[in-house]
Parts: sequence; C-alpha cells; structure tokens
Amino acid sequence: MDTATKLKAKTDHKNRLSKTVIRERFQSIRDFTTVLVKPLETEDFVIQAAEFASPTKWHLAHTSWFFETFVLNKFQDDFESIHPQYAYFFNSYYLQTGVPFTRAKRGVLSRPTVKEVFEYRKYVDEQIITFIEQADDKTWKEAAKIIEIGNNHEQQHQELILTDLKYMFAQSPLMPVYQEIEHQPVESIPELKWVSFIEGVVEIGSKGEEFTYDNEHPRHKIYVQNFDLANRLVTNGEYLEFINDDGYERPEFWLDEGWSTVKEQKWKAPLYWFKREGEWMNFTLSGARTVDVNEPVTHVSYYEADAYARWKGLRLPTEEEWEHACNQFPPKGNFVEQKNFHPRPVESSKSKLHQMWGDVWEWTQSAYSPYPNYKPLPGALGEYNGKFMANQYVLRGGSCATSKTHIRKTYRNFFHADARWQFSGIRLVK
Amino acid sequence: MDTATKLKAKTDHKNRLSKTVIRERFQSIRDFTTVLVKPLETEDFVIQAAEFASPTKWHLAHTSWFFETFVLNKFQDDFESIHPQYAYFFNSYYLQTGVPFTRAKRGVLSRPTVKEVFEYRKYVDEQIITFIEQADDKTWKEAAKIIEIGNNHEQQHQELILTDLKYMFAQSPLMPVYQEIEHQPVESIPELKWVSFIEGVVEIGSKGEEFTYDNEHPRHKIYVQNFDLANRLVTNGEYLEFINDDGYERPEFWLDEGWSTVKEQKWKAPLYWFKREGEWMNFTLSGARTVDVNEPVTHVSYYEADAYARWKGLRLPTEEEWEHACNQFPPKGNFVEQKNFHPRPVESSKSKLHQMWGDVWEWTQSAYSPYPNYKPLPGALGEYNGKFMANQYVLRGGSCATSKTHIRKTYRNFFHADARWQFSGIRLVK
Amino acid sequence: MDTATKLKAKTDHKNRLSKTVIRERFQSIRDFTTVLVKPLETEDFVIQAAEFASPTKWHLAHTSWFFETFVLNKFQDDFESIHPQYAYFFNSYYLQTGVPFTRAKRGVLSRPTVKEVFEYRKYVDEQIITFIEQADDKTWKEAAKIIEIGNNHEQQHQELILTDLKYMFAQSPLMPVYQEIEHQPVESIPELKWVSFIEGVVEIGSKGEEFTYDNEHPRHKIYVQNFDLANRLVTNGEYLEFINDDGYERPEFWLDEGWSTVKEQKWKAPLYWFKREGEWMNFTLSGARTVDVNEPVTHVSYYEADAYARWKGLRLPTEEEWEHACNQFPPKGNFVEQKNFHPRPVESSKSKLHQMWGDVWEWTQSAYSPYPNYKPLPGALGEYNGKFMANQYVLRGGSCATSKTHIRKTYRNFFHADARWQFSGIRLVK
Amino acid sequence: MDTATKLKAKTDHKNRLSKTVIRERFQSIRDFTTVLVKPLETEDFVIQAAEFASPTKWHLAHTSWFFETFVLNKFQDDFESIHPQYAYFFNSYYLQTGVPFTRAKRGVLSRPTVKEVFEYRKYVDEQIITFIEQADDKTWKEAAKIIEIGNNHEQQHQELILTDLKYMFAQSPLMPVYQEIEHQPVESIPELKWVSFIEGVVEIGSKGEEFTYDNEHPRHKIYVQNFDLANRLVTNGEYLEFINDDGYERPEFWLDEGWSTVKEQKWKAPLYWFKREGEWMNFTLSGARTVDVNEPVTHVSYYEADAYARWKGLRLPTEEEWEHACNQFPPKGNFVEQKNFHPRPVESSKSKLHQMWGDVWEWTQSAYSPYPNYKPLPGALGEYNGKFMANQYVLRGGSCATSKTHIRKTYRNFFHADARWQFSGIRLVK
Repeated sequence: MDTATKLKAKTDHKNRLSKTVIRERFQSIRDFTTVLVKPLETEDFVIQAAEFASPTKWHLAHTSWFFETFVLNKFQDDFESIHPQYAYFFNSYYLQTGVPFTRAKRGVLSRPTVKEVFEYRKYVDEQIITFIEQADDKTWKEAAKIIEIGNNHEQQHQELILTDLKYMFAQSPLMPVYQEIEHQPVESIPELKWVSFIEGVVEIGSKGEEFTYDNEHPRHKIYVQNFDLANRLVTNGEYLEFINDDGYERPEFWLDEGWSTVKEQKWKAPLYWFKREGEWMNFTLSGARTVDVNEPVTHVSYYEADAYARWKGLRLPTEEEWEHACNQFPPKGNFVEQKNFHPRPVESSKSKLHQMWGDVWEWTQSAYSPYPNYKPLPGALGEYNGKFMANQYVLRGGSCATSKTHIRKTYRNFFHADARWQFSGIRLVK
Repeated sequence: MDTATKLKAKTDHKNRLSKTVIRERFQSIRDFTTVLVKPLETEDFVIQAAEFASPTKWHLAHTSWFFETFVLNKFQDDFESIHPQYAYFFNSYYLQTGVPFTRAKRGVLSRPTVKEVFEYRKYVDEQIITFIEQADDKTWKEAAKIIEIGNNHEQQHQELILTDLKYMFAQSPLMPVYQEIEHQPVESIPELKWVSFIEGVVEIGSKGEEFTYDNEHPRHKIYVQNFDLANRLVTNGEYLEFINDDGYERPEFWLDEGWSTVKEQKWKAPLYWFKREGEWMNFTLSGARTVDVNEPVTHVSYYEADAYARWKGLRLPTEEEWEHACNQFPPKGNFVEQKNFHPRPVESSKSKLHQMWGDVWEWTQSAYSPYPNYKPLPGALGEYNGKFMANQYVLRGGSCATSKTHIRKTYRNFFHADARWQFSGIRLVK
Repeated sequence: MDTATKLKAKTDHKNRLSKTVIRERFQSIRDFTTVLVKPLETEDFVIQAAEFASPTKWHLAHTSWFFETFVLNKFQDDFESIHPQYAYFFNSYYLQTGVPFTRAKRGVLSRPTVKEVFEYRKYVDEQIITFIEQADDKTWKEAAKIIEIGNNHEQQHQELILTDLKYMFAQSPLMPVYQEIEHQPVESIPELKWVSFIEGVVEIGSKGEEFTYDNEHPRHKIYVQNFDLANRLVTNGEYLEFINDDGYERPEFWLDEGWSTVKEQKWKAPLYWFKREGEWMNFTLSGARTVDVNEPVTHVSYYEADAYARWKGLRLPTEEEWEHACNQFPPKGNFVEQKNFHPRPVESSKSKLHQMWGDVWEWTQSAYSPYPNYKPLPGALGEYNGKFMANQYVLRGGSCATSKTHIRKTYRNFFHADARWQFSGIRLVK
Repeated sequence: MDTATKLKAKTDHKNRLSKTVIRERFQSIRDFTTVLVKPLETEDFVIQAAEFASPTKWHLAHTSWFFETFVLNKFQDDFESIHPQYAYFFNSYYLQTGVPFTRAKRGVLSRPTVKEVFEYRKYVDEQIITFIEQADDKTWKEAAKIIEIGNNHEQQHQELILTDLKYMFAQSPLMPVYQEIEHQPVESIPELKWVSFIEGVVEIGSKGEEFTYDNEHPRHKIYVQNFDLANRLVTNGEYLEFINDDGYERPEFWLDEGWSTVKEQKWKAPLYWFKREGEWMNFTLSGARTVDVNEPVTHVSYYEADAYARWKGLRLPTEEEWEHACNQFPPKGNFVEQKNFHPRPVESSKSKLHQMWGDVWEWTQSAYSPYPNYKPLPGALGEYNGKFMANQYVLRGGSCATSKTHIRKTYRNFFHADARWQFSGIRLVK
C-alpha cells in the first residue's frame, strides 16, 4: 500500500475527522497542488483559454479563498485576509458570500502575480495549520467537516488545473508539453464482453461512512431492470469505426441538440484529435502522438457518447446501474497519482469488469438531479452542488486526472452534454 | 357524454384501429383545427413571433404534410402532391425525410397563401378519406397506426396554434383578442392540503390498451418513496407572495442557470404579466385583465416552478410520482373543448386531488429521458420523440389548450427549463 | 412628355409650393404607392424578411404617419388620429416624437390588418386634402414645405417597398413573381470609354431652385482633380470576369472589413445570383432568369464595388466628381415609371455618358458626411438626414426603382458598405 | 535639444536614409520599447483584455516579426528564423504573407514565454545590425526604406503597448499602477478663443521631405472654407457640463449609431471615468485620481466628440482644416518622451494655438479615405494602410503616448467611431 492508500484507509475509520488526519490530508493535498504546477512557466498560470476554463493561478487562489471564507473568516475571530479584494476575485459562484468577479474575465487579471498567489497560499496554509492546532473541541467539531470539504474541493480543482491547462496548450500551434512521458503501447486488449446484472430493488447513495458530498444523499431504494454492462471502456479503435462509418455526418444517430452542436462546432472527431498527413493524431499532456487504438476514447461529449451507443444499437448506463455494478469493485486504477495524465489500455485481463475506476469519467444517461429527499448543506455551502441540478449529466468513476483519495462509488460528477475538455469516455450497456 | 367523450370511449376498445373509428376521428380532429382558426384575420396566419413559435398557416400545412409524407407517399402508389415544394417547406425536423426549411425562417414565407394552404388541407383530407375507403386489409393494418399518430400529431399542433398565437398577440401593444369570453371569478377555493402516498414498487408506463407514443413504453417497475402531493395547483395569489417576497431578486432560491436566465431576460413575473397603474395584469386569449388570485398560476418556466417550490421549502413531483398519484383519477377537467382557453380556479371541493387534468401542464422535476429498454418507432417516425431526450423536463396532465381525447395518464410532454409560452404551472410535493 | 414629367416641369417653377401643385403631387404620389402594391396578396404585406427591411403594410402606414405627425398634428387644432397607437407603431426612428416600436419587430404585428392600414391611408389622405383646401396663407407657407417633404419621403418608401419585397420573395424557394415582364435582351452595348474632366474649383450642392433635402446644402466650392469617368456602368459580363478570376477568394482586392464580410456572409457573387445546373441565374422581380451579360451589375455592396475597381486597377468616383460630371446631363433614364423594375442594358449609343440616371444607384467612394456649414432642419425633422452621417457611403443617380420626379443632380442617397438589397451598381474612374 | 530632437533634425536632411541614421534610429527605438516595458511583471505581458488590444509580448514579437519578414527574409539569402512558427503567430493582418493567427486569440498563448520573446528580439536586433553593416549599395537603397517603415511601425506599437496596458489594468479592481507620477495640477488655463482661417485653395499631404506613410500622398489641392478653430482642447471641466446637462441621456445630440452605442455599452462618461462616493474619478497609468477639470478630456469616442460639439452648437474640424491650421506650428508638446503618460493642462499662454501636438489625438470629422490618386505600397506592405480605408475616422496631432520623432503635420491616424481606448480628445470648430 502506498502512502495515499494508507491515508485513505485511515479516513475510513472513526478518526476521519480527527485533527491529525485532517491536518495530514490538508498538507498532503495542498502540497500535491504545488507538485502539479511545478512544470509550468509563469506565463502558463495566467491564461483563461475559454469561458469554461480558468487560469491556473485562479485555481491556486480560489482553493485558498475557500479555506479563508468558510473556515478562517467563520471560526477565527481576529482573522485578517492578506488582501481585502481577494475575496471578490477568487469567489467562483457563491452568491451568498457576495457578487463574484465575472467568470469570463478571470483571464484579464495579471495581478495578483503568481508569486503573490503563492504567498497567499502560504499565508492561508499557515493560518489553517495554526487554527487546527488551537481550535477547541466545539469549534473543531464544526470546522473539521468544512476543512474536509475544502480538502476535497482542492482535489477537484487539481483535476481542473490539468484539464484547463490541456485545453490552453491545445490552442497553441506550438503544442507545449506539460510533462514528457514515453508512450507505452500494449500488444492487445481483452475483447468486449458483457457482465449481467439481475433486476430488483437495490440501494444506492452514501451510507455515510466516509466523506461524501450532499448530493450523494440520502441512500435510497430504487428498482433496477436487468442489464448487461460492457467489461471495459470503448477504445479509440472502436470509436474510429464510428468516424469512418460517417458517424459525424449522419443525423439518425444523434440527439437533436447533439446534431446542432456537431454542425455548429464542426465536430469531426473527439476533442484534441487532428489529422496530420492523413493520420489521426491526438494532443496529450505529453504532446501530440498517433492515436493509440487500444486506449479508451476520451474527450467526447455526452452527445458523442450517446450517438456512438446508438450507432452500435446499444445505450449508456444509468448512474444507478453503474453504482450497482460497481459494488464489488474497490477503487483501483489509473488515477492522477500514477502520473500518466492520460487513460491507459487495459493491461491485465484478470478482472471481470475493467477500468471502472480512473482512466476516464464515464458518461451515464442520467440527468443530474436530486435524490429523493435531498437536503443541501446549510448556508453558502448549499450552493456547492444543488444549484447545478439542471441540464447536466452524471459521470462516474473518476479519471486519470482524479485523485484516488477523492473518488468513491457514490461520487456524482456532472457536466453539460456538450462538454469535452474533461477526460470523459464511454462504457456501453446492452 | 358529449360526442368527443363518446368517441374516446370507443377508441378504448378493440376497434380503436377500425376504419370507421379512425376516419371519424380524422374528420373530427381536422375539423376542430378549422374551428380553432376561425376567429383569425388572414394576417394572423402568417407571423412567426419567435424562433420557437410557428405561423398558424405553417401548423395547418405541416399537419397535412405529415399525412401526405407518412401515409399517402408511402401507401398510395400514384400519389402526387398538390405542390412539389410543400414537402420541403412543411417538414418540421424529420431529417430522414430530407433537409427541412430553416425553422427560424418560417415567418418569411408569404406564399403559399392562407387560401392555398386551405386548399392543400382539403386536398389531403380528400386523399386520406379515399385512401381509408380503398385500402386493403394488409395495407390498412400498417396505415391505421400511422393515421392514428397523425391524428394525435394534429392535436398537438392545435395546442401550439393557440400558444403561438397568444405569444404573437402579446407582442403587440394593441393586445388583440382571440376570443371574447367574460371572466367568471369564483368566491373562494379549497385550501392547500396534502395527499399522502406510501413507498413501494409500482409500475408506470403504458399498458398498451389505448393509443400512446413510443416514449410511454415500456411499462416498467420503479420504486417510489413516501410523498405527499398538494391537492391543487399553486394559484396566482400564492405566487404573488413569492414575487412580493423579492423572489425574483434572491439567488438562493434559484438553480444556477435559472438565475442567469432571470437576469438576462429580466424576468419579474410569469410571462404575460405586466403592471398597469401599479396593478398586476394578465394578458389572456380574451385580452388583458387583472390577475385573478384564485386561478392557477401559468406561463411559468421550470426555473420559476422550481424556485417557487424551494422558497416554500418544498419541491416539484417526479413524473413517476405524478403518474402513480394519478392512477385513480380519470381525465376530467378544463380542456380545450371547454373553450375557456385559460386555466380556471378549482370550482368544487368534492375531489381529493383537484386539477390533475387540464388547466395547466404540471412541471415535474424529471428530466426527459428514455424509459428502460425504450425503442423508438422505426424509420423517420422514430425521430418523433426520442431525439429530444436531452436537456428538457417532463410535464404532465394537459392544459386548457389540450384536447381531452389526446391526453392520458402516461402522457409525457416535455419542454426546455426556460420555456414559458405553454400553459405550464406548478403542483407541489412535500 | 408624360404626366409625371409635366408635373416635374411645373415644380421647377416658382409655384412649386402652390396649393395646386402640392395637392396634385400629393395625390399622384399616394396613388402611385397603391399602384405598386396592387399585385400583392394580403400575406405579402405582413412580412419582415430581415431587420433592415420592413413589411409593405408598415411602409404604407409609416408614410401616412409622417403626414399625420408632421402636418396634421401640428397644424390642425382639432385633429384626432384614427387610432391612438399608430403613432407608436409607425414611427421609424424619430426619437423627438417619442420612442419608436422596435425596428426588428415590425414583422410580428399582424394587426392593424392590411384593410385597416388602407383605411388609415384613406383617412389621412382625406384629412390632408381638406387641410390643403382650408389652410390660411400663413399656415400654408409653413405647411407646404413639410407636405413636400412628405411627398418625397413617400417616394423613398416606394423604392423600399420594391427592394424589401424583392428581398422577401428571394427567401422563398417558390421565388414568387412580383410582375411578369418578358425579358428583352439587346444585341450589344457600347464599349467602355473614358470621358475626361479637368481639374479646378467647382461648386456642388443645391442652388435651392427645386425641392431638396437639407443634406444637399449649402452649395459650396470644392477643388476637383483631373479624372476620367467611365461612359457607362459595369455590366454583369464584366463582373463575371472578376468572379471567374477568383475575385471573391483573393483578399488583396478587398478592404479589410469587406474581406471579413465576404468570409462571414459567404459571398460568392452579387445578391440574388445563384447557380442552377452550372449556370449563373438572377432572381428579379419578374422571377429567376439567366444572368444577362449586357445588363449593369446590381445588388453589389460598396465592398464589392470597391474590390471590383481595385481588381481593374481603377477606382470609384467621389460624389463630387459624379455631381460635377453630371452637370450637363438631365435626368433621363430607366426609372420606376418605366416599370422595368430591373436595370437595362445601354440601348442607344448617342450619348457621351450613359446610365448616369436610373438603372442602379452608383456607389461613390465618399463617406456620407455633412457639407461645410450644413444645418439640419429644426425639430424632429432634423433627424431626417443628419444623424446618419457616419459609417455610410453616398450613392448617386437613382435606380430603376426610383421615381424620376424624385431624383436630382445633387441628391445624396446613403447606405452602409455591406448593403446589397438596393439596386446598387458600379461606375469606374481612372 | 535632447537626443531624440537632434535625431529628428538629422532625419530631415538628405542623409535620412543613410546607414548611420537608420541604424541609430533603429537602436534607439528598439531600446525605447524595452524602457517602456521595464515596469511590468511577467504576467502583465501575457494578457489580451479585449479583442482590439494585444498582449504586450505580442507587440514585442510582432514588431520584430516585421523586420524579419520584410527585411531579413527578403534581403538576406541564408536567413533562418529563430523559430519557424513565429511568422504565423506574430503576423497581424498581412494576408499576402500568409494566414495570420486569429487576432482574438492572441491572449491564449502562454508560449513563447516573455523570456523567449526577448531572445527573439535580441536575435532580430543582431541580424538587422549585421545586415545594415553588410548590405551593398543596391540592396541598401531598397532595404533602407523598409527599415525606416519598421522603425515607425515599432513606434506605433509603443503607443499601443501603453494604451493596451491601460485598458488591461483598468479591468482589475486592483487598479495596478504602471508608473507612479505625482499629479501636478495647474492654477488656471487660458479661456477658449477662436483662431480664424480664410477660405481658398490650399495644398495638403506630404511634400516628401521626410518619412511618411503612403496614405499621406499625394500632396494635392483642396478648397477650404472659412473656419474658426478653438485655441485649445476641450477640458474635463467643460465635458462635465455636457454630462451634467444629461448629454448621455438626450438622443438629439447623437449620431444614430452613436446613440445605439451609448445605450448598448451603457456609456455615462469617458472611458476610465468612474464615481467614488459621488465624485468623478479617472483611472490613469499612475492609478486612479479625481478628475482634473483643467486637463483635456480624453478616451472619448468619435461619437462622444461629435455629440459634445453638437451640444455646443459647434462641430469638429475636418482633417484638411486641421492640417492647414497646423502649418505654422512645429511639433512641440506633451509626447511620450515627457513620460507623463497622460494629457496635461495648457501651461503657458504665449501661443495662439495650444496643444495641437501631443496630449490627445484630435478626432476630425473626416472619414478615413484615400487622397486623390493615392497609390498603396507594392506587395504585402500595401496592406499597411489602404485596406483600412472604410468606416474609420481620421485623428491628428499625436498624443502623450506618441513619440515626437514619429508624428508630423501630415500624419493620418484612424480609428473606428466607437474606439475609446486611445488617448483621443476634442478640438472644436465654429
């Protein structure tokens, strides 16, 4: 067991909210953020390449702002921010904490500089550590849960740092390399098989034994129909057949709004695919290379995942099916800690179900909506999840940019149906 | 029992697809369309007041095109269209029957004239009647189902004729009156009460005994939690309290995209509400009048319905809850046959659940998605429903613009979360 | 001399503002509007096919509103409008007379109906005639000039009725015919020659002897350089050479904003040109027909006119050059009274300069700006011309849709550089 | 005489194109660019705050690209660029040298880094110096003129660096300071007086004695009317009267498109003005401070300049009037060399005409168009000026961000009527 796994094991126990565990996790997560941005030039921190993305330095500051706003401002009487306007700049969307700076304009702020942002992080780090040390029991009881949210929140932004950077680098004909990694192809992968599940009443949602977001609650009964789940993800090679069968030119496979998007955006292939001298290439965080047919297809939208499934005469899983199927498989896979920064082909064929964890987020056909009797967190933190429950789709399982100490069986990620800049992929259901 | 009810009763029986029943329904529905457009001036037929609406004459022609394309072209060997280009103009979105004329430009075509469109209708009517009379058994078996779809399709467009006209009239400071109807207020309405339903496995979806669309299939088991359903719709008076409590100014009640829409569209009240000398007025198909506090609130978006419910600390029903609750209540209510063209206050207090049928479509919190193992119709008719299963919400129960021979318990209507020009309203769940 | 010419001759004399002349012109111009719309169906009157165009019924009403607002409301004490809201609907842009109804929404008003608009016209006609008969001398002196503006204003809208209708008909794959006219080609046209003019101080602008708009004043001295003016307009045949030389694909000939427009709008040829089976066709008010190489090219933007000239190594005239060159040529040509509704090839070769009048408006390279010491009319009528003196270009000479009693040597028409729906064409300068 | 003035004097003589003079100017101009960006943080170089602005590092590279493309690539046989893709990135709009990288996306490129851009500059500097030293007479004769254009081109971008930075800093609530400068107000300024000029034929345009752009040619005769020119610029104090008289709320003073812009952009005052506790403040390159009523108003659009003039019952000068009036006044004023980076109040009252040079560019009412018989430079350099001759207005006289060795009497700057981010101001004509 590596350190992170051990840490995870610990948190599964009662002392999950102890000062020691929380502090340890706080420090290791904050440090890992720093590790992730190590390869960058100062200029790389500043740019917002699309409205849906944010500059790296904004992520660095916003995660600190979270601790400042929800912990230090709340529990530490004499707390003073390092700069009074950071609260305004680095608020993402919490309307109950004040009007945030326009999202689309995060990329027009050259100041605070990267150096100042790191000073801000350091300041917040020190304040939080001091706070943890000094908090009395009553305060701690309340604060521990919020720091835990802050830790998980930072892990979400670690993933966004990687995907936003990738999107930004991809705009440039120079195609900068985030990290040099030698590509290691495999000879072959297991063929596609079906794993059957029997209908009946099952429970999904969190049992409350580990850290969870509010949207994973309450645990509740549902009725699942019979279904067969694919034993692995759809590969680039399989997806290429769809492209070569004019998949992007035939409306009959597409949702109506998917088809409009294909036409408007002129999609011809997954995001980051391009042709060089007749050959399909792939831009990765390690630079451009030939599309590897054995790797799982990634950077596809819900529309593409759904169209691919229809073309095959199949469909995507519901989130309930995914969670139910996942019950017997512990989180093990190609996560950010592996530092591949890209999905990997299936390597062994021992398991019945491959790649449920890591590699790519799996689009489900479930619209993101509240579980029966869902209750958001009180106050501004209630804005964390609930208010996005419209027009988005649930993705499950984490990706190569997700931390393995962050993901879990009941975890519900969500994006709009046209989003492609996350590591998102396809698993089929029959 | 009036004629339509009798007709409906008939169709519940085995002879639903007999030549007699189909022809009778075809003729009565086609005639009713003509009745609905009787009050219009020629100019009223021509205008497209928004991209989501269509000119009346387009509806008249498109419904005829449907019979022409899916019945006459298919089953009648020597069929010739009255005009070769109508097929192009009056296709709505069926990509498998050819590229349709741009939706947004339906309002730039002055020709064919209204007179020519009525000639087109007459031509198609005669052809269909002749076809019904002459079809051999084998042909009829196949064609009957499609004419039945065409009949239902025409009823959907009857509703759109009314809502599109209302939207168009509302653009004009002249506020034209579609039909003069004296407003008949009531003294009082029953107070809001809760009807309880117990959790368990139930079945929803069509049993296949009557006409249904593909999206109501297959019937399947689901697990419903305990829930309490409001005994009646939310009224204008109740909704006014939300407005007066600054509901449209407080982001905490709104979905994120709802809040952006409120700000962008400058919503302050339901569509068609406006203030005259400090008083809230309502534009109706019978002209403008003071908002009646006892009438159900209507022309609200999903966002508004959801925000209202949150403000009350309550929520909207799921479509499964609605259908389950509806089981014991036959379709009786304020439908288009009543010719109120507007929702009505609850009049009697005998029933346990009021206004489940007619008056206003009830927003559910269910995203519109396929039932487990859903199969679209084969060919171009498969585009009827399935391809819209993204980013829309299900509404149930029909409205004052819906025909009572069209609606049923399992009927799934769907619109985008920001749509307000349908007669859509709110029922609460606790 | 036909009636209109005689009328024009009269107005050149001192009695231009006499009651007799003004009334005669008022009646003949108002009648001619009715003649122009005779071929239309009711539906044709209603549609606004683009934001820059207006429904025919709006033109009919707006020209009446002009007389109502600036004459009847002002000079007739007890005047009552036929409908209080028409003033709001049919104001085009005169901010000093109140906020106008949104231009882009002129096409969403089905009411007032065409019949009601004709009643409005009739009412205004009667009121104006009565007013003319009864006005005392002092009132008349002031009012006569305004009615004269109103007459000219109506003639401008006659031209817009034709060009807006053409634009609307062209949207329809049915390509409706406004008026059947047999196409009469000519054998050949005079070859392109150059007419020289010598540099020096000359005067341009109105001497004030006839009716003019404020923007033609004051007459003033300018210095003209030597220049050679083409003896006739550029033909379709000549313009085709530019197209065939990839003129629309080569940025070097285009103004920067012209080039962006070409790319954005996907221009490949003049407006209303399209290819049918490999052959260039032309949509005209008499339907579609093969492009006639001897006709002047028309429906080109300033950008296209300028690019064509650059491709030839030549340029467009300035408005001063045009006016100076025009001095010796009286207005005779293919005007709306000829009812060709399309430009014609040069027919005789007697003249030194052909087609200076009628056929097509000639783009000049002069930005539309005030003459030195220009004074707009007082009050709301001052908004007639002056406030458009930015980002537009001057066109001279009138077109086949202009009345010959409307045009004159000093007349300054103006449109944006990307406008193509007017009958606009090209004359070259060396 | 300071160094720059001496240098300018030299260039007025025959040896303007000698190797010594050209090299000296090349070096001093390239160095001055470096001086201007000295106060910046790395992050400040990267950001594009609006489509019309560019990142500082883009300016630094683009000016180098100009020398590379038009000098080194052309005249130096074995020239190799430091990076093959820079030619693509740093092309601004020269279509004849290849398709440029999308202007709007200059701000999404983090690489090349600032350091790499400085290396690029250094490389180009060395290559150019070597080239100058080694060029034979024939080559030099041709190349000298192009380097001279490159020098002037770099000076234009120095001005843009300052105005683009100002625009970027102004987006930030932190309001970063480019350079601390103590504000030095004056007691009073001369009152507004009129200087008369008599009508007649005069010549404008370059005599060809000094460096000029192609658009200043050929020198030609024009006829100027009588006019009175204001002896100084309009001040903030005077402009405030317009604001306080509801100038931004009254359409009667505005050009039609000006008024739409005011409403759309919600303009209430010049760019960079804002209210703090009821007081008008001004964001400058030295930070925010109270509006100084004696300073010339700046950062106004053509629309505002024109509306202000109309409100006063006056007008803006034509470019010919400005140039004619300027004849007797040598370029002396508040230029970038003074390092005020902001316009200054009139300080002495000795002159008849104040502030004709420097401080702010003066909007003229002249649309930017070619002089009679204008010939663009051959090849790609012909794109420098000519292709922008549409929909822009001429400004004259230079600003506090212009180099005094760059400006001259015949210099024609041009911007769109809604541009406000340059130091643009108002001089009146009666």
